[in-house]
Amino acid sequence: MRVGSDAESATSDAAYVRAMLDAEAALTRAQAALGLAPAPAAAAVTAAAADTARYDARDLALRARSGGNPVIPLVADLTAAVAERTPEATAYVHRGATSQDILDTATMLVAVRALEPVLADLDRTAAALARLAAEHRDTPMAGRTLTQHAVPTTFGLKAAGWRALVLDARDRLAAVRATLPAQLGGAAGTLAAFHAFAEADGTADTEPGLGVRLLASYAAETGLAEPALPWHTLRTPIADLASALAFTAGALGKPAADVLMLSRTETGEVAEGSGGGSSAMPHKSNPVRAAFIAATARQVPALASVLYGSLAAEDERAAGAWHAEWQPLREALRLVGGAARDAAELAEGLRVDTQRMRDNLDVTRGLITTEHLAAALSALIGRDEARQAVSRAAHRATREGRALEESLMEDPALSGVLPKERLLELIDPAHYLGAAGALVDRALRRPAVGKEETS
Amino acid sequence: MRVGSDAESATSDAAYVRAMLDAEAALTRAQAALGLAPAPAAAAVTAAAADTARYDARDLALRARSGGNPVIPLVADLTAAVAERTPEATAYVHRGATSQDILDTATMLVAVRALEPVLADLDRTAAALARLAAEHRDTPMAGRTLTQHAVPTTFGLKAAGWRALVLDARDRLAAVRATLPAQLGGAAGTLAAFHAFAEADGTADTEPGLGVRLLASYAAETGLAEPALPWHTLRTPIADLASALAFTAGALGKPAADVLMLSRTETGEVAEGSGGGSSAMPHKSNPVRAAFIAATARQVPALASVLYGSLAAEDERAAGAWHAEWQPLREALRLVGGAARDAAELAEGLRVDTQRMRDNLDVTRGLITTEHLAAALSALIGRDEARQAVSRAAHRATREGRALEESLMEDPALSGVLPKERLLELIDPAHYLGAAGALVDRALRRPAVGKEETS
Amino acid sequence: MRVGSDAESATSDAAYVRAMLDAEAALTRAQAALGLAPAPAAAAVTAAAADTARYDARDLALRARSGGNPVIPLVADLTAAVAERTPEATAYVHRGATSQDILDTATMLVAVRALEPVLADLDRTAAALARLAAEHRDTPMAGRTLTQHAVPTTFGLKAAGWRALVLDARDRLAAVRATLPAQLGGAAGTLAAFHAFAEADGTADTEPGLGVRLLASYAAETGLAEPALPWHTLRTPIADLASALAFTAGALGKPAADVLMLSRTETGEVAEGSGGGSSAMPHKSNPVRAAFIAATARQVPALASVLYGSLAAEDERAAGAWHAEWQPLREALRLVGGAARDAAELAEGLRVDTQRMRDNLDVTRGLITTEHLAAALSALIGRDEARQAVSRAAHRATREGRALEESLMEDPALSGVLPKERLLELIDPAHYLGAAGALVDRALRRPAVGKEETS
Amino acid sequence: MRVGSDAESATSDAAYVRAMLDAEAALTRAQAALGLAPAPAAAAVTAAAADTARYDARDLALRARSGGNPVIPLVADLTAAVAERTPEATAYVHRGATSQDILDTATMLVAVRALEPVLADLDRTAAALARLAAEHRDTPMAGRTLTQHAVPTTFGLKAAGWRALVLDARDRLAAVRATLPAQLGGAAGTLAAFHAFAEADGTADTEPGLGVRLLASYAAETGLAEPALPWHTLRTPIADLASALAFTAGALGKPAADVLMLSRTETGEVAEGSGGGSSAMPHKSNPVRAAFIAATARQVPALASVLYGSLAAEDERAAGAWHAEWQPLREALRLVGGAARDAAELAEGLRVDTQRMRDNLDVTRGLITTEHLAAALSALIGRDEARQAVSRAAHRATREGRALEESLMEDPALSGVLPKERLLELIDPAHYLGAAGALVDRALRRPAVGKEETS
Repeated sequence: MRVGSDAESATSDAAYVRAMLDAEAALTRAQAALGLAPAPAAAAVTAAAADTARYDARDLALRARSGGNPVIPLVADLTAAVAERTPEATAYVHRGATSQDILDTATMLVAVRALEPVLADLDRTAAALARLAAEHRDTPMAGRTLTQHAVPTTFGLKAAGWRALVLDARDRLAAVRATLPAQLGGAAGTLAAFHAFAEADGTADTEPGLGVRLLASYAAETGLAEPALPWHTLRTPIADLASALAFTAGALGKPAADVLMLSRTETGEVAEGSGGGSSAMPHKSNPVRAAFIAATARQVPALASVLYGSLAAEDERAAGAWHAEWQPLREALRLVGGAARDAAELAEGLRVDTQRMRDNLDVTRGLITTEHLAAALSALIGRDEARQAVSRAAHRATREGRALEESLMEDPALSGVLPKERLLELIDPAHYLGAAGALVDRALRRPAVGKEETS
Repeated sequence: MRVGSDAESATSDAAYVRAMLDAEAALTRAQAALGLAPAPAAAAVTAAAADTARYDARDLALRARSGGNPVIPLVADLTAAVAERTPEATAYVHRGATSQDILDTATMLVAVRALEPVLADLDRTAAALARLAAEHRDTPMAGRTLTQHAVPTTFGLKAAGWRALVLDARDRLAAVRATLPAQLGGAAGTLAAFHAFAEADGTADTEPGLGVRLLASYAAETGLAEPALPWHTLRTPIADLASALAFTAGALGKPAADVLMLSRTETGEVAEGSGGGSSAMPHKSNPVRAAFIAATARQVPALASVLYGSLAAEDERAAGAWHAEWQPLREALRLVGGAARDAAELAEGLRVDTQRMRDNLDVTRGLITTEHLAAALSALIGRDEARQAVSRAAHRATREGRALEESLMEDPALSGVLPKERLLELIDPAHYLGAAGALVDRALRRPAVGKEETS
Repeated sequence: MRVGSDAESATSDAAYVRAMLDAEAALTRAQAALGLAPAPAAAAVTAAAADTARYDARDLALRARSGGNPVIPLVADLTAAVAERTPEATAYVHRGATSQDILDTATMLVAVRALEPVLADLDRTAAALARLAAEHRDTPMAGRTLTQHAVPTTFGLKAAGWRALVLDARDRLAAVRATLPAQLGGAAGTLAAFHAFAEADGTADTEPGLGVRLLASYAAETGLAEPALPWHTLRTPIADLASALAFTAGALGKPAADVLMLSRTETGEVAEGSGGGSSAMPHKSNPVRAAFIAATARQVPALASVLYGSLAAEDERAAGAWHAEWQPLREALRLVGGAARDAAELAEGLRVDTQRMRDNLDVTRGLITTEHLAAALSALIGRDEARQAVSRAAHRATREGRALEESLMEDPALSGVLPKERLLELIDPAHYLGAAGALVDRALRRPAVGKEETS
Repeated sequence: MRVGSDAESATSDAAYVRAMLDAEAALTRAQAALGLAPAPAAAAVTAAAADTARYDARDLALRARSGGNPVIPLVADLTAAVAERTPEATAYVHRGATSQDILDTATMLVAVRALEPVLADLDRTAAALARLAAEHRDTPMAGRTLTQHAVPTTFGLKAAGWRALVLDARDRLAAVRATLPAQLGGAAGTLAAFHAFAEADGTADTEPGLGVRLLASYAAETGLAEPALPWHTLRTPIADLASALAFTAGALGKPAADVLMLSRTETGEVAEGSGGGSSAMPHKSNPVRAAFIAATARQVPALASVLYGSLAAEDERAAGAWHAEWQPLREALRLVGGAARDAAELAEGLRVDTQRMRDNLDVTRGLITTEHLAAALSALIGRDEARQAVSRAAHRATREGRALEESLMEDPALSGVLPKERLLELIDPAHYLGAAGALVDRALRRPAVGKEETS
């Protein structure tokens, strides 16, 4: 998490309290909209809930212990606030609801709000990566597999790949965000209390569909999606959030892993715009953002595993599975929020050293293009003989510290097979990039959905 | 996992070998389709690959160690098989590809094939649950929260909720399955070797788009989706599979958790059709399927966390992150395959004891309807007074072992407030089901996408 | 976590800041002890560090971002504090250390301090469980396997098992706590800077063992154990903490799981002393503590998996693996702290309803003792015949709603085999407890190491 | 997992079947030892169990489904085998036990057997690392923090650190292995059936301690430790195994992570003795063992989290938690077995390139010793001025591509402060190794407990 970030404030204790108050106010308004509560009562509860300074998150948390959740003391405080100005409205505070209705709805509100800056940061990241990919479409660099140089690639293709993952993350988060539902079911998911009050008050038809209509009205008042069923123990929204957050953490973890590799002192192909200082070494510039993103990618999957585990929730309210969701979901939102901000800054500030990329391509004295050589030669002298000749020459060049082309020219099997100019072309990494450019072009045609698109 | 199940055979060593052979054959055919290889060579490789009896999974695994993956020995065996009949075709075996191209494509083929019976079993499960929900739309039972009776609900609403989760799982699995892509990138994701061979052979235009066209051709030959980019270290497909499998495990874990609770000896509201016997106790009938599903729900989220962790894959092929995917993905497919079969059998065979449901509603001597009472009374004597009177009467009834209605009638605060008939109605659980029926009706209108729909 | 608990305050932001200040002060004192710094400087730094009101945790966190950790701003503030009173001592603040030295040492101090109330709470828990086990040594209750009644057991044996797990947890936590080491290695674990300053100042011998002696001196000043090597990327202490915390969470999760089962409304054999209220249902008393413990048992293993993952830390300081430890370790300490307190209160306040235990034993009309019957009869009429006869009688009793003994007496195979008195004895659960009592006695002889022992 | 390895065969289906047969045979012998069964019956069961060719693992697995575990069909087959030769002994097969007694005991036997080659491989690894540490006690190399060169260290210190972790792992595994207990409790952990048979047969005293004595006798016959209590739902042994296995995976993951970093093409300081080949690139030599170890370090913590989760097991046999242990424990044993073998081969075959280490130390043109410089200068010109001067000179040297000593000599603040010889000494990495050698010496004094010690 980044202290002081949007993600931190969106998931603070105060943000949860505000969201719970929003949920309570929406509940009374939704009942008023169906004639189940007087309009002035709804206004009174909404006004009292808006006076957020009255509610102290820490005090609520302390009083939450005995009942097992913070809604009970919050309702007490909200009722007191309503009573001060509109005593007759107190009967409509939290009426018919269960604590989980409020807590789950508040969690969804917090998630929707916390994801807004995340999506914006992913847009920034994708835009910056698109620029990098376009700029370096044809910048050759070493392609590395299992830590070793393999064949050349381009930095543009690498950046285009990073962007593809960021857009994948954005798609998944945005899709989930749009479906996050309000929660309302009453004590055991039948909405029976709302029917009971309507029946007792004679305020509305008590046909079986009343609860269903209230669900729609409540969703509208909260701004959240309408659930098909109360989901006290049908935790699809939580699992979907877990999935999208774990995906995003991992997706951002890929460019972070690459930046950590490419900025190693011996490699030096990229550097964070302004890395972290060191308390001990005045000269060091550390890839701090990449390290924090990498740390996020290590944590969120485990948090998501807890949230997936809570799908198996017994009864109409689970004893443990539900409670185990609270902190991991909040922490996952925070971590992803911090990582998205870090990723945006990292992508926007990344320094690319194309000369080091070029220099590193030569570290193996041409070995990185042996595949090209072997392919070209196989048409002339056969596949196996070509492989062996190239391997011989490569080992000789390495052993004797000489240029690969010389070693090749001297190999008896290659004598007269290819002119030197063609050999030099074949061992030029910039001539062995395959479809890299075409792949970048195609990848960049994928639209970014968010602000990037319209700006 | 269920030994002997479709899921086991679809993820067996032999199934992986077959999928790798399919990938190799598709690769040569895809090149032939673009003029990069002779048609007879493609036919020869396809024929040799189809002779699966030639390839021994265990022998390949033993020979896989030195190179780090089983593709190298498989290519050797496939080449030998091709050489027996069509020696001139051997040059086109595995030409241009890297081991990961074959292994990833094979993994996708295995996943697509393994998910087919899973989807069918989810359809069976959803259909059986739809029948249960419809049949028990109005069957009252205790709604339980935090292990305690709360207010009544219906078994229909519970079954409708289970079905909603199963359909959610089905939607997610089917959506992911349709997007699983073929893998082709060559040594470092640029498809350069294919360009090199085309150039050397003069067999095709060597324009930059050749690799992109080959990607499309290869995808078509495998029957998998076409990827936007080679995804050696852009692991969206693996993460998406992880997500859908973890979701499914958890989604099936919910009815399993409920069955385990409801079939406890003291509760006895449901029973598995034919539970497992016991080696020690002749009379016992255990909820074995529910236990195995619950065990799956405990394992797959952890496996998914490993797969999410592998998104952060460095370079053009990761050293460790990639290798860490193989076993968890296979195990997740197997576990979910077993759980889906168990769930189908569980849903189809579930015995529901509506009498025990009714009896259990009375265990608290009417306390389960105190919310109804309090709501009705609050309109008559005020919210707080109503709550207190009900609480008093409930405690008295429990303490003295008497019927709640008697205790209520005797309470001075309630004297004359309500006639006895109304009281009896208010404490009848079947009169306090709220929107349960309407919710079931709406939930059952959600269509099942698969076989259930068309049958 | 429990807000307001010892565990919360021991792991608060302020607690971490205090521990970092303690680490800095100990560092200067350790150098003074070896003549590497003037004694007055050590006193000045210690005094400035003790003035904790000067240091604002949130402000430090905000300033921590650019450098990647909070030590850099803390050193700045500490230096400023020292400068106010003893300017010449500022050169000795943080001298020779790296941020990780301070942060890791502070983490160990926090862990040691946070575990103290945990150990005390486990002692309370074990003592209460010992009382329950002794009191209910011979209280029969249903033994349940795979949710079904199996054979009788005793509540004493169950409580003795809970206590065994609690003592296992206590042993593991206490053992780890005693080994938690100070951290000191300087920039890359060689302690070279301390040698350099000693050399430059001429303040001490600069023999190779200086760093090793400083390590011992520093450990002594912090009160932590001395490490064999600087452990910047040798994370045994973190992994050991992870292990003990995950174990404790799970160990407490066992009694919690049992309490949740046994307190279900239909079972009612135990109840939390004072459960949580409900916002919707005035009569409900929820097992809130058991639910929170269960939630902890679901979360800590996942947090531990992150910590284990950080063992694979590259280089002399890892970029990501180290940063991924901070929050999971803190959260694990908090969760276990809360769960230990909950467990103590749960164990001390648990209400045991021996009558319900007795009543529930009869729920299956004697089936719970069929194993006893079968064993007794097998000596008389053969193993298979005995099993079949008992099974026949049991099914008949269940089907016809009659007493098992009657059904048995009527079975032709059993005619005259056993007198009725013996039959009644055999189907009395209290006569089929095997070694339960002896096992309880032996288990209670295992000493509790902590306060329980001496009180 | 390594196919064909000791770890694979020790955890194969056949190995589990053999262990279950061993458990059954031990059970009858243990009863015979107490006079609860005839000695010839014990001999007959032992002989029938030893005829392992009779029992087919796959067939048992197929028949295991209905009862939920493989013990039921195994007992049937074992009984049939006994019946062929000693019909009167069949009554003593599996007598008094529950399936979990056999399955848990078998799991412990498998673990004990599977850990034997693991411990031997860890001994090999530690011995090889001790040799590397001693040989390279004074080999300077770059110390790297957060991917960047920090200050020099030695390869000896690095190898000594690796060995310390390997010994930590060995200690933990060996300690757990010695405590793994036999399991015996009968249907619900009271050992009541054994009492019942003794009572019915009149074969032994039926005092309450009979079960306890049988526990001891059974443990002796299996060669496992004696448990204090039957542990059907007191899963300390499983959690302890999980802990030691996750620790070992992570501990081996540290050298693997370092090898992956140090063998990167640009760094090239170490190489696996014989790396894996590549299907596409003839010249490549991949760190395959390090990659597989790294993959293990990513998987086992997640498997361990499932096993920790199973501590919270309800009742006297858990429905799900127990079943969720089987596959993760087996997989963890396999993975750790493969990783230990890989680590031994990696350590024994590691090629160390001291020249590349030396060359890489110069990559930053002396920046790696600026800390040494700053310390030396701070005694002469003050801490802040020293830092600034060094930083200035370092940046100038980097910018202008010149030697650091020249840049330093030209700095006005350093004019005449230090003679050039002293400067050259200060910027020599080999003169800034602090306590590295002394730390290596101390670390190597830690004895290896296993074969290494005695050889």
